[in-house]
Amino acid sequence: MIKILVDCFGGDHCPEAPVAGALAALAANPDLYLILTGDEARLKAELAGKTYDAARLEIVHAPEVIGCDEKPTDVIRLKRNSSMMKAIILLRDRDDIAALVSTGSTGALVTGALVRLGRIPGVIRPAFCPILPTMAGGIVGICDSGANVEVTPAHLRQFAIMASLYLENVYDVTRPRTALLNVGKEAEKGDTIRQETYKLLQETPSVNFVGNMESRDFLSGNYDLVVADGFSGNVLVKSTEGTALELLKKLKKDIYSRPIYKLGALLMKRMFQEEKEFMNYQNYGGSVLLGTQKVVVKGHGSSRAVAVEKCIEQAWRMETSRLAAKIETEIARYEHYEE
Amino acid sequence: MIKILVDCFGGDHCPEAPVAGALAALAANPDLYLILTGDEARLKAELAGKTYDAARLEIVHAPEVIGCDEKPTDVIRLKRNSSMMKAIILLRDRDDIAALVSTGSTGALVTGALVRLGRIPGVIRPAFCPILPTMAGGIVGICDSGANVEVTPAHLRQFAIMASLYLENVYDVTRPRTALLNVGKEAEKGDTIRQETYKLLQETPSVNFVGNMESRDFLSGNYDLVVADGFSGNVLVKSTEGTALELLKKLKKDIYSRPIYKLGALLMKRMFQEEKEFMNYQNYGGSVLLGTQKVVVKGHGSSRAVAVEKCIEQAWRMETSRLAAKIETEIARYEHYEE
Repeated sequence: MIKILVDCFGGDHCPEAPVAGALAALAANPDLYLILTGDEARLKAELAGKTYDAARLEIVHAPEVIGCDEKPTDVIRLKRNSSMMKAIILLRDRDDIAALVSTGSTGALVTGALVRLGRIPGVIRPAFCPILPTMAGGIVGICDSGANVEVTPAHLRQFAIMASLYLENVYDVTRPRTALLNVGKEAEKGDTIRQETYKLLQETPSVNFVGNMESRDFLSGNYDLVVADGFSGNVLVKSTEGTALELLKKLKKDIYSRPIYKLGALLMKRMFQEEKEFMNYQNYGGSVLLGTQKVVVKGHGSSRAVAVEKCIEQAWRMETSRLAAKIETEIARYEHYEE
Repeated sequence: MIKILVDCFGGDHCPEAPVAGALAALAANPDLYLILTGDEARLKAELAGKTYDAARLEIVHAPEVIGCDEKPTDVIRLKRNSSMMKAIILLRDRDDIAALVSTGSTGALVTGALVRLGRIPGVIRPAFCPILPTMAGGIVGICDSGANVEVTPAHLRQFAIMASLYLENVYDVTRPRTALLNVGKEAEKGDTIRQETYKLLQETPSVNFVGNMESRDFLSGNYDLVVADGFSGNVLVKSTEGTALELLKKLKKDIYSRPIYKLGALLMKRMFQEEKEFMNYQNYGGSVLLGTQKVVVKGHGSSRAVAVEKCIEQAWRMETSRLAAKIETEIARYEHYEE
């Protein structure tokens, strides 16, 4: 039985989405035990009248709420009774708990996890790895996407190793084709960090390094994993989501501009719904934090129940595949020439 | 009469696209005089049978060809008789020539321009500024998009000043709403460079600074100009183009998956064509290099005649608006605290 914490306050649809997602995950997987953190009375009210296996669900009271504008460093010091910080402390202190899923503030979650949870031995910096759909029908991971805005080649190599293991163990991708995000394909492109990382990845048998990738090829399906500093990785993920959403919004608006388009769109209704679902990041789970000793999965702030359920499944798969131990073994194969 | 060089070899559709673009620009604007560089015999063959004002068109023979894999530093040393390097040297040496339009290798063009052409006094680093369409029906510029992969806050401030003047003078955008590309909206987000640049832009009255922008809002229409280092700016531009093209490609493929979708798409044919045109960067001209003493416009390698024509128009507007002199005046208002 895998015990996973679900932070039920912090996202846009709280607590309904995390609670509904937790109950769905619980029903689907008999090997799960879930601990919901948050205001007990509100959680009980949300659970009232619902059917679930009460022997595998627990509530931990954590009444404080984290505001949008609060500094992450203040949150971890002053908001110990918030649903997120309480969960992080429980995760650190209790050996029987394996993972945490949260849709709350990214900054607070990263800072809290880095300060309160230990890193996997050998890991210099934990990093985020979200998963996006490719136009070829597969998926592509990107690591880092925002936890580290400044990096070294040694960090980038570790991101490549950790995320390759993640894709292999959680998504069954064999020898993930791993590229370095750069401004051109040639080995000498980019700044010194990119040039050195290119060489380093060529000398890293744990990674199936296929060269530099330009951002325009991100969704092509030619890559399983893209390695980036947290700044440009963040730019890439958000612009991909943003462009797709803006374009679908524009199509919708234009459809309403002429009756004949509306008629055409009516015939294509199911297709448009499928495109929307396809581009909906909620269907691809959360962004996992790789490199902490215990599993942390960050769901999008706007997550609905289905997205929270996916996040819980991801956390379960990370834990049951013993990903942390595998990362430790693989990282230990390489000396860190730089901390 | 404004004299502009057109490099007729280097892009994917050479020399037909540059020649046709040049003739179209010549016909549309009686104030233009164009100098085509490239293999004279091939250019003459391309011009044969076409109608144009021969008194405003000149050919300069430059038979060498730049290969895809050639290093920019080798090109500028060894390929002085290529259509691009010949044009750059003419631009440098002849006072009567104002500008250069090229669809050739970006690396060779940047290196050649930086080494051979002088910078506007006060400008630390020239930078690229492409223009993209927003979903609100307007345009948005981004500077830098690839000329400088490593930058300082002082560079970024100059990019903001130069590109604001460009949008005002060439696109009639009054007080361009200028944002800094970052991983979050709050002032303290990002690395030290971003944090310092944020403060610096607040103290720069020449720039209408509206704060940080996350990449997902790039096409929203809420910004006229985005300032970025050349690395993340490049990631943003290429992922925006890439996502839009991949998504339209997927829609097209899905339309053919069921007869009823094909029927619907038939009714919406004109709309889909308009969307495609809307997302076609060729309609928005080239990426100008801001900060060199003479005007340099880089068209996309895949430019067709219409895109080359737009690039020539852009170059003409940059020159006639006396943009370089305005940049010099505005830049001189600020001390460079760092070179």
